[in-house]
Amino acid sequence: MVDILHRIAVTSPPAEVYAALTTTEGLAGWWTTDTRGEGGDVGGVLRFRFGAGGFDMKVLTLDPDRHVLWEVVDGPEEWIGTHVDWVLRREGDHTVVLFRHEGWKEPVEFMHHCSTKWALFLMSLKALLETGKGAPDPHDVKIDNWN
Amino acid sequence: MVDILHRIAVTSPPAEVYAALTTTEGLAGWWTTDTRGEGGDVGGVLRFRFGAGGFDMKVLTLDPDRHVLWEVVDGPEEWIGTHVDWVLRREGDHTVVLFRHEGWKEPVEFMHHCSTKWALFLMSLKALLETGKGAPDPHDVKIDNWN
Repeated sequence: MVDILHRIAVTSPPAEVYAALTTTEGLAGWWTTDTRGEGGDVGGVLRFRFGAGGFDMKVLTLDPDRHVLWEVVDGPEEWIGTHVDWVLRREGDHTVVLFRHEGWKEPVEFMHHCSTKWALFLMSLKALLETGKGAPDPHDVKIDNWN
Repeated sequence: MVDILHRIAVTSPPAEVYAALTTTEGLAGWWTTDTRGEGGDVGGVLRFRFGAGGFDMKVLTLDPDRHVLWEVVDGPEEWIGTHVDWVLRREGDHTVVLFRHEGWKEPVEFMHHCSTKWALFLMSLKALLETGKGAPDPHDVKIDNWN
């Protein structure tokens, strides 16, 4: 098993970061404008759609302002069964966001792509929180010939 | 052992990407303006300096327009002995860059930070090649409270 890891920090308080990860309005502001479902309930399913397809995430853990954990229940084969883990921690003037997309079976080329893409979406989350304007799909930063 | 993986693609030909990875002028254009040493010779050492410290990389492999491999010989403890691997491949109208920073002993928080930071520096490499202007340190994109 191999994991994608990232770390960002934002000047917003943990509650605002948590809202951006658990409400459809928040998620639509940084990941994809086509976000539906229930991110604020354990057991709820979030449906993220992009031009090329999408992902369904089941909410496994919600610890307000501290921790969010999703399981991928539908999407590309390589994603199914993986987990997306968000840990929030206040540190001085910042909220640190530790991100893990864990449980990939193999370090395939698609995983390389997703790692870079996640970094840019995390920067989109940071921009949304700090400036009010993220870059969700279809306005996302293109990184390669896959998107 | 755990690895950082990324993938970008640029419209520039492989020879231009290779130059940006093997010449001090190229490297200074996207990673850090304070780049010295010999990136174009196997066995050469590149010295990258940033505000907070730096890295020395020994060039292990050079396959023109295809592959560059470095070993970290000095820098933060977590980096020493790790390898930075660049594989270039032409695919249609793009040069695909597969990046691996491999051989981390543990998935420490600093590795999360470096993973995100590498993604932004790869986007800086892409910008340098496609627009003529990258964002090397000290003009780099800040991602968290560490930089």
